Amino acid sequence: MIKIPASPSVRRLPSYLHIIRQAHIDGYEYISGTIIAQELQLEPIQVRKDLAITGIVGKPKRGYPVVALISAIEHFLGWDNKNKAIIVGAGNLATALTGYSEFEFHGLEFVCAFDTDPEKIGKKIHGVPIYSMASIKTQVKKLNAAIAIITVPSQFAQETADMVVETGIKAIWNFTNVKLTLPKGVVSQREDLTSGYAMLSVKMIFDKEKRVLE
Amino acid sequence: MIKIPASPSVRRLPSYLHIIRQAHIDGYEYISGTIIAQELQLEPIQVRKDLAITGIVGKPKRGYPVVALISAIEHFLGWDNKNKAIIVGAGNLATALTGYSEFEFHGLEFVCAFDTDPEKIGKKIHGVPIYSMASIKTQVKKLNAAIAIITVPSQFAQETADMVVETGIKAIWNFTNVKLTLPKGVVSQREDLTSGYAMLSVKMIFDKEKRVLE
Repeated sequence: MIKIPASPSVRRLPSYLHIIRQAHIDGYEYISGTIIAQELQLEPIQVRKDLAITGIVGKPKRGYPVVALISAIEHFLGWDNKNKAIIVGAGNLATALTGYSEFEFHGLEFVCAFDTDPEKIGKKIHGVPIYSMASIKTQVKKLNAAIAIITVPSQFAQETADMVVETGIKAIWNFTNVKLTLPKGVVSQREDLTSGYAMLSVKMIFDKEKRVLE
Repeated sequence: MIKIPASPSVRRLPSYLHIIRQAHIDGYEYISGTIIAQELQLEPIQVRKDLAITGIVGKPKRGYPVVALISAIEHFLGWDNKNKAIIVGAGNLATALTGYSEFEFHGLEFVCAFDTDPEKIGKKIHGVPIYSMASIKTQVKKLNAAIAIITVPSQFAQETADMVVETGIKAIWNFTNVKLTLPKGVVSQREDLTSGYAMLSVKMIFDKEKRVLE
């Protein structure tokens, strides 16, 4: 079994990509790990470790070759190929996601959305057409979608996932608070907004205590 | 300086809380670390380490006392007190966040939203009133808000953060893709949706390679 690299390292790759692409636009050929570290308020050793998972190493004094580093990160993440995604549940979160321009730079293309609400079917969100849930299997085949983004209310999460699995899709990005039961061979990533809130909360407490102690 | 606990551990606490609260509802007095680990597909040793940061240790054979563990996690996160939050930028993401019922279980209360669009001002999103940006300082004082959630388009992120800092708010939850420059004493947490997409992408690739190699 191949071990997937540590998730905090993978989670940081898009931020690296963002900075390195900007360096490329600004005409730099090399970028140092120290500069990237400063930009993201990380330790330089951490940056070097994170970037090493993509298979690229920096040159002493010069740093990383910008173009090669962009390719290495994109290839590691599979973002050098377009990923076609459907969104199941055409609510506010779906509208927010389709309007989030960052994704298109990362090869994520929203091909269509699905909903059960007759008021929504036939309409578009940020140019993405909304189809009836009944047509999901046909549309997924036709559009060759690889990812399903589930943004339905949590009580419909599992049955929605079951329908998605039925279409043959092998990757689910789950925005509900339900831990999905999925067959082997289907990968999933749960996006838990309360995790970020937990981080902020802890920072608030520790910052207050630090000031009291100083 | 106090060291903030490792972020992956903090990020997992809401999931623990979710499971342990359910155990409480189901009438359990104790819950074992192994059960929690199974539920979240983690190693039991990881669960014990994560929960240790809240200051509570399990009893051999019995596990963790459910009620005390809920209190310990909530207290560690500061979720035993209500956190009043304002949302700056009353768009689709704001609508999605205010409609996300999980937050109220974690003591997060959205007191109002702000926008510059005259069409939106005076309206409500999921019961949360939208005020004019011009009134932010007055409203924050009046409502005693502690957190600002920034959901404006990225090009307005820094100027919005500056306005938020002006109100005296010390905690910013940043949903833009901009790394904010903030004065000392103001903490922030950036929510980067591309991080989750990176995780899903890597899982897709590794799952495919694993199957090829087997």
